[in-house]
Amino acid sequence: MAQHDDAPWTLHPDRALPAEPGLRALAREIYGHIAALPIVSMHGHVDAGAIARDEGFGDAAELLVMPDHYVLRMLVSRGVRFEQLGIARRAGAASAERELPVETDHREIWRRFCAQWPAFRGTPSRYWLEHELVELLGVTREPSPATADAIYDELAETLAKPQHRIRAMFDRFGIELLSTTDPATSGLEDHAALARDGWGERVVPTFRPDALYHPHTAHWREHLTLLAERSGIDVGDLAGFLEALRERRRAFVAAGARASDHGHRTPDTTPLPAGEAERLYAEALRGPLDVASSEAFAAHLLFETARMSLDDGLVMQLHPGIVRDHSPALAARYGADIGFDIPEPVTFTRGLRPLLDAFGHEPGFRIILFTVDESSYSRELAPLAGAYPSVLLGAPWWFLDAPGGLARFRELTTETAGFFNTSGFVDDTRAFASIPARHDLARRIDAGYLAKLVGEHRLGLDEAIETAIALTSTLPRSAYARPAVAGG
Amino acid sequence: MAQHDDAPWTLHPDRALPAEPGLRALAREIYGHIAALPIVSMHGHVDAGAIARDEGFGDAAELLVMPDHYVLRMLVSRGVRFEQLGIARRAGAASAERELPVETDHREIWRRFCAQWPAFRGTPSRYWLEHELVELLGVTREPSPATADAIYDELAETLAKPQHRIRAMFDRFGIELLSTTDPATSGLEDHAALARDGWGERVVPTFRPDALYHPHTAHWREHLTLLAERSGIDVGDLAGFLEALRERRRAFVAAGARASDHGHRTPDTTPLPAGEAERLYAEALRGPLDVASSEAFAAHLLFETARMSLDDGLVMQLHPGIVRDHSPALAARYGADIGFDIPEPVTFTRGLRPLLDAFGHEPGFRIILFTVDESSYSRELAPLAGAYPSVLLGAPWWFLDAPGGLARFRELTTETAGFFNTSGFVDDTRAFASIPARHDLARRIDAGYLAKLVGEHRLGLDEAIETAIALTSTLPRSAYARPAVAGG
Amino acid sequence: MAQHDDAPWTLHPDRALPAEPGLRALAREIYGHIAALPIVSMHGHVDAGAIARDEGFGDAAELLVMPDHYVLRMLVSRGVRFEQLGIARRAGAASAERELPVETDHREIWRRFCAQWPAFRGTPSRYWLEHELVELLGVTREPSPATADAIYDELAETLAKPQHRIRAMFDRFGIELLSTTDPATSGLEDHAALARDGWGERVVPTFRPDALYHPHTAHWREHLTLLAERSGIDVGDLAGFLEALRERRRAFVAAGARASDHGHRTPDTTPLPAGEAERLYAEALRGPLDVASSEAFAAHLLFETARMSLDDGLVMQLHPGIVRDHSPALAARYGADIGFDIPEPVTFTRGLRPLLDAFGHEPGFRIILFTVDESSYSRELAPLAGAYPSVLLGAPWWFLDAPGGLARFRELTTETAGFFNTSGFVDDTRAFASIPARHDLARRIDAGYLAKLVGEHRLGLDEAIETAIALTSTLPRSAYARPAVAGG
Repeated sequence: MAQHDDAPWTLHPDRALPAEPGLRALAREIYGHIAALPIVSMHGHVDAGAIARDEGFGDAAELLVMPDHYVLRMLVSRGVRFEQLGIARRAGAASAERELPVETDHREIWRRFCAQWPAFRGTPSRYWLEHELVELLGVTREPSPATADAIYDELAETLAKPQHRIRAMFDRFGIELLSTTDPATSGLEDHAALARDGWGERVVPTFRPDALYHPHTAHWREHLTLLAERSGIDVGDLAGFLEALRERRRAFVAAGARASDHGHRTPDTTPLPAGEAERLYAEALRGPLDVASSEAFAAHLLFETARMSLDDGLVMQLHPGIVRDHSPALAARYGADIGFDIPEPVTFTRGLRPLLDAFGHEPGFRIILFTVDESSYSRELAPLAGAYPSVLLGAPWWFLDAPGGLARFRELTTETAGFFNTSGFVDDTRAFASIPARHDLARRIDAGYLAKLVGEHRLGLDEAIETAIALTSTLPRSAYARPAVAGG
Repeated sequence: MAQHDDAPWTLHPDRALPAEPGLRALAREIYGHIAALPIVSMHGHVDAGAIARDEGFGDAAELLVMPDHYVLRMLVSRGVRFEQLGIARRAGAASAERELPVETDHREIWRRFCAQWPAFRGTPSRYWLEHELVELLGVTREPSPATADAIYDELAETLAKPQHRIRAMFDRFGIELLSTTDPATSGLEDHAALARDGWGERVVPTFRPDALYHPHTAHWREHLTLLAERSGIDVGDLAGFLEALRERRRAFVAAGARASDHGHRTPDTTPLPAGEAERLYAEALRGPLDVASSEAFAAHLLFETARMSLDDGLVMQLHPGIVRDHSPALAARYGADIGFDIPEPVTFTRGLRPLLDAFGHEPGFRIILFTVDESSYSRELAPLAGAYPSVLLGAPWWFLDAPGGLARFRELTTETAGFFNTSGFVDDTRAFASIPARHDLARRIDAGYLAKLVGEHRLGLDEAIETAIALTSTLPRSAYARPAVAGG
Repeated sequence: MAQHDDAPWTLHPDRALPAEPGLRALAREIYGHIAALPIVSMHGHVDAGAIARDEGFGDAAELLVMPDHYVLRMLVSRGVRFEQLGIARRAGAASAERELPVETDHREIWRRFCAQWPAFRGTPSRYWLEHELVELLGVTREPSPATADAIYDELAETLAKPQHRIRAMFDRFGIELLSTTDPATSGLEDHAALARDGWGERVVPTFRPDALYHPHTAHWREHLTLLAERSGIDVGDLAGFLEALRERRRAFVAAGARASDHGHRTPDTTPLPAGEAERLYAEALRGPLDVASSEAFAAHLLFETARMSLDDGLVMQLHPGIVRDHSPALAARYGADIGFDIPEPVTFTRGLRPLLDAFGHEPGFRIILFTVDESSYSRELAPLAGAYPSVLLGAPWWFLDAPGGLARFRELTTETAGFFNTSGFVDDTRAFASIPARHDLARRIDAGYLAKLVGEHRLGLDEAIETAIALTSTLPRSAYARPAVAGG
């Protein structure tokens, strides 16, 4: 809740629960059973190295603004320039525009954020930031031009304390298990360091081979070279490449990995005819493929990945439907992460058909599907998850990880897929400090949805509580179960 | 409502009405005016023969599990194997998997269903099954592993009683008119038997020519041969084929039919250029067409069907947008009904244009549109129904025939199409015993939607009641009026 | 609210606010702060000539039925024939149907409307018409066959009074600024007349060049000739054509214009390769282009329009996704405005990419996006507006300008784009008398949405009030700011 009058800024205990008093009472009771459960965070992008080194979080801008792409995008959309947020142009990036100096004063960056605080009204960033500022950091004033400096100074002091180093926060947040996202070529050194410190059971890697699956990109060859080095396997032909991938998967499994993660433009999984994949691979070794060939190759690799998954038990996660670097000019100027990723329509039904027909009925196989195209929820995703034993629906992804987005996910999928064909909540954050806020919000929205079912006499309260606990703990644990348990 | 503590399992009288007390009071009043109205069930898939023979329903598994594809899909999605549900592999169906024995003990099948009862939380199956178990069958315990055997035994006794034969239930349910779905080549013998018993006014056939409209399928020739036999018309060229279809439509009209029903992959209705349809037909006589040619031929036939409809007054029903047998391997193993049908995106605007431009303004023509792609509701279906006098929107179909799906249908179509350009509720069930539960749920959701309009002072209560009665009785009666009345 | 029993027909003060008492109280307070604010109406289709001549509104049919395409479509969908609504067949339009005489008695047209009053239940037309009848015209009886004549007579008297001439209503409605929509070739004579009367600051034109952007249409050449005449510039090649457009834009800016408006089938903005646009233009001068070439040319022109916009500061408005004249037969019979426009799926992500990559980061550029495909809201529009500083989301358009449509717009866009990346409400009406009703409804729905955020403790009440005021006044004023202010 926002601060008003001169009362200190606090969080309302019933925030994000339904407004109607009867439903709120039910939701509060359901939420009460899950509010304090440990966090299972299986799809994050937190840097394993930061945990291995038990880093602190710097200042207010470094904690809350600069690493959060939700926040950066909103500020830019309101006319703040990248340079004003500390983001430098790449060397040599040409521009007809007047060049702005790159801001190096983090206090100025924080002021710009505070001045734009109203832009976040109604967004999940507002909810998460409030939660972090008030609950985690003890801030009692709402951001504004008038309060920016005082909050900045207060946070400088707060963040310097040892209880705000990452491992201490890990405990305070009640994180039971956190998965990082790691390139397939990662040496997993940070995870090894974590294991040596006794953190190997709490922080595990996720196998992300995207850079190796898309041979139209300029950097594919570099990644391939790295793959050969890491695996010690000759990748001179497709068989070697696949074997090298299998080897890396084994290394990830040994390091505790539970899942692979795949960000493709479409969910196409059509295997190539015999010989064609070998031919494309050989062509890619000679130089970048055209986009169509690269996508066909990537589709083939998704099919092959399912086969590997059946062998080694890593659950597949698929996130399609995003046009990366929507503004190539921007990406050229500031870097690929800055170029605005924008969703486009996605259809799963035809694309997943080959993979699901071949592997979708196998008891040892699991695939978790994500989307940012809500029209696919009731049309395709729920029917697929409500039929194939291998298919689970992931949590609302990215732009949809928000109060309304989370609620619509349940409304649009439960009637066909039920609750137990979903993975439970996974956050998708780079911003470590936002993890409890995100899980808390998802728990509240699920409690509200279940309260509605109870309030409309479509579910018993004890069933609702049991279901809420499943969504919070049981389902993510089993969706991301250890390979040895899950595999065939 | 679920059973909890040790109170007997009962249905809450306000179930599926809005939770907010003011809206609930309004909804209860509106629902009170329609709860007991007779059922008009114009799009079912109940077997006419079962009514002609006044069959009973066997045991709990035969009544509630084995004929219900919603239930089977959910159980399979939770890891139950088809064989464990009594579904045998087709002779000769190869598989690398270990073969499971086919379950023949219906009690075991019932137990498996009861063990998976939580999987149905939040689904319409849960609502329908509760309604059937409690209201229709007097069961007082909720399904669970602990209660499975007792319920099975109780139902064995209950279902043996004469009041649970189908005709007795027909009366008890208050079914005014039920339409079955029958292949165009059906001899309609069961309907003749029903007519001899005085049931010809209550049970009527629907003309479904799909098997004859898609000449890429292996069985098209068989159906064609049957068409020639039934009609006594030479189908050696397209003109004969169309005349044979017209003859069968006449036979259906004579047997009381009100409608034809069309399940095409897309809503394309583009007529073929002169001579091209004849050419494709001749080619099809020589062997199966490729899929593209077959779909072009099917689109042409939809256009021709509108012309026939204008002549004989059968209302057209169109259900596009489904990929049949999404898993061909599964269909090969267990049969075509088992292969999982999954929706894909569908757009009506371009596809229906030729048909609507030619026939859509004719006073004697009606077409009822169904979708499982909710994105088409406000974008295309409501604008079409709110413009063309011939277009009506059918009830939420299949996966969307659920509390949320029914509510969203009204929310997304009423503002552009109003209430009176919709057909009222039609169920789409094979499971006879679920008919009253389905109609009851739809009436409650419509009452809730109307209550919201009243509660927001956008409609008077008397108007809401009048509208609810129209949606329940008047509109389905007129949408599926007798051809003699409807035809130009 | 509807009239019932014999109480006079009145509007409930809380209509279209949430039904739940807590939220209603909050919404009422928020709405109270904006209910009486002046109207900024920047996307209307009111005839500037009518204001210049200070016209009256004729009779009930001329005011409420004949100019309102929402009303006409609904009546036609219920079986009323165009002729019965006073719409004549075009000379020479052939038809196999029996020809109806064209109704010339407006009282009969009014009676037909009153008889179909129930068809509007649940539609925004119902809300708007109620508002106009009760609030504006003092009618105390609800339309019905029984009341039709009395209302008709009453309105004849009312509308004859001087306070119901358009300029008097302008004041009464509290319209601060109204923008008309004018062809690029308009001489803007009516606006000149308005300026002479001191109305030039309150009524401004909008530059709409659609007829010149689509060279597959039969009338393109006529419009081109007119462009050359108006601009005094030789349009014999593309450079001249573009210069003539720039000249017309300057004339519009001089007349107070704030925006250009573009209704394309798709949002494609791909510029043509060098020389290709010149080639297509030359080809178009020789005869109509095929549709594909015409659309490619139109896409190129949108790209060029952004460049012009950057120069002269007119904000671009884009309305894609409509199939115009869905029934060509109807359009041929009664005219192009009658042929039913129906939406189809639209995707913005790829289409806008060239324009946004080139101009989307420029501080002086703004583009306002509209859709009738709600699936694009959360998938594409909100992510675009929440990233590019130039992109604003327009108000729910056409079929979506309705209680549910307005609410879903906020629900589906706010979490990613916030409130301040939207333009605030713009109506889209030809029916002048409906303007206050439309703005009032939008204000109520926004108040209800904000009340929900407050009621769920996601926003402070003072923030909600401030935001409501922004949506009503501040945002439309700045989105459509004077070019001199907005430009570079």
